[in-house]
Amino acid sequence: MNIVFHSSQFNLSEWQQAFDKLSGDIILQSVDQVAMTDIDVLLIWKPTVLDWSAASNLQLVVWLGAGVDVTNPKLQLPSGVPQERLKDGGMKAAMCDYAHYAVLHYQRRFDRFLEAQRQSHWIIERDYKRKSDISIGVLGLGHLGMAVAEYLANQGYPVSGWSRSPKNHENVHSYAGDEQLEPFLKQCDLLINMLPHTTATHHLLDEQRLRQLPQHSAIISLSRGAIIDTQAMVNLIDQGHLRGAFMDVFEQEPLDKASPLWQHPKIIITPHQSAPTQTLDSAREIIHLIQGL
Amino acid sequence: MNIVFHSSQFNLSEWQQAFDKLSGDIILQSVDQVAMTDIDVLLIWKPTVLDWSAASNLQLVVWLGAGVDVTNPKLQLPSGVPQERLKDGGMKAAMCDYAHYAVLHYQRRFDRFLEAQRQSHWIIERDYKRKSDISIGVLGLGHLGMAVAEYLANQGYPVSGWSRSPKNHENVHSYAGDEQLEPFLKQCDLLINMLPHTTATHHLLDEQRLRQLPQHSAIISLSRGAIIDTQAMVNLIDQGHLRGAFMDVFEQEPLDKASPLWQHPKIIITPHQSAPTQTLDSAREIIHLIQGL
Repeated sequence: MNIVFHSSQFNLSEWQQAFDKLSGDIILQSVDQVAMTDIDVLLIWKPTVLDWSAASNLQLVVWLGAGVDVTNPKLQLPSGVPQERLKDGGMKAAMCDYAHYAVLHYQRRFDRFLEAQRQSHWIIERDYKRKSDISIGVLGLGHLGMAVAEYLANQGYPVSGWSRSPKNHENVHSYAGDEQLEPFLKQCDLLINMLPHTTATHHLLDEQRLRQLPQHSAIISLSRGAIIDTQAMVNLIDQGHLRGAFMDVFEQEPLDKASPLWQHPKIIITPHQSAPTQTLDSAREIIHLIQGL
Repeated sequence: MNIVFHSSQFNLSEWQQAFDKLSGDIILQSVDQVAMTDIDVLLIWKPTVLDWSAASNLQLVVWLGAGVDVTNPKLQLPSGVPQERLKDGGMKAAMCDYAHYAVLHYQRRFDRFLEAQRQSHWIIERDYKRKSDISIGVLGLGHLGMAVAEYLANQGYPVSGWSRSPKNHENVHSYAGDEQLEPFLKQCDLLINMLPHTTATHHLLDEQRLRQLPQHSAIISLSRGAIIDTQAMVNLIDQGHLRGAFMDVFEQEPLDKASPLWQHPKIIITPHQSAPTQTLDSAREIIHLIQGL
């Protein structure tokens, strides 16, 4: 079986090592090593080669990431070839850890402590909040969004979620559809953005929507940057309506060195690291997919 | 029953509100409102009045904090008056949340991300660590120390603990006594200091002990500052042996504005806030103590 690994971001030999730990049978090849017509399986991420229409034996394409917007619509495949994306790749656990850190950042006022430290200032902080005092709203209840919502609810936080269609979950209060977006936003102390980026979600959080968040609420942005009108968000932080933002994703990545976000005292920036693809977990999933052929 | 509330730090009316939520029977009075000889119960924290030897009817003193070193040895009481301190006051949950944030800070490399943000630098970070990759050592397994160790073990971290005498706990590997301090330290990726301050623990973590920690380990200091020789710790950070420190407690508090710790890029400082006394939980405990009289 010819398995081609093609990515402008990931390293073939790192992935080969992960497969070797799990099985001796999987040999990854680069696109130059195999005739297009001999490819059986294509493992792909951020491809530079887009035209695979000559791969007449192709049985499966696996995108090496999770989420609904990982595929590249410009990719050309023979008709009928199934495309899979990683269901988890260890991402759920990684995303939950990251979200928990960001929640604690605001719950326990580490934002205030960081600011005080910059000023060499010992502050007396009386306004202690426990988990049950913080209302968390998860925007987007897909695979990863629901995982984060469930995780935080299990940790003891009051959690609600918003999605296009209503979801039934014991510990996550469901808001659904356009008409429930405002009541959802109005009760979030912390808003966690977990929506995929589609034409329907582009700048869904514009100035009007962001103003519907309560005074002094904060935003944790983990899925895709373009869901939020970043400039409107920064304005609302500067006006004191929003407390701050914890951002792992941006409208353009990597974030430009000249971006004023970097040095904004009320914004935390991480370089799209909330749920890095983990080769070993991913390799396990891919082996399972290949065995199903 | 005359209950006197005396503290240079806490506010009587805030505490009265907490008692009012739980019971209509508890009236807190200040020391000027009651003759010394009429006091039945004394609730005390950071007292300015130290001589209570005339309080001949005193039945109980409650210190409004937890830990073994909260009492003031200069306080004068009639002989035989029992002194209690709060067993929890909501501190366990607060301490566990704080410790979890500090653990995630290093596990998920938020220390690197903060440093990169200061430099407006988008870093590519490949060295992802999951919970099971981080060996946590809790130094001191008293009431709060064991709570933190158990909590982190339940979250999925490999956790060991060191104490004077061996402890039996399913998920926390026990090291005990002087001769096991070195093997304990040698296997800690993250060391959480939860020891009380006594003559035996003063500067227990001196330069020699700190060097026994693995290269690139980090310290989370939550109990008392004087357990650690701070200057030795800073030297080892500057030499690259230690990765950094997350400090809530200091040899002198409040930390002096001129302290170089404030602006050290590898040190996080919070103003002794890992487990603030919570009035409602504390009031519940105190009512229980008073009902036992």
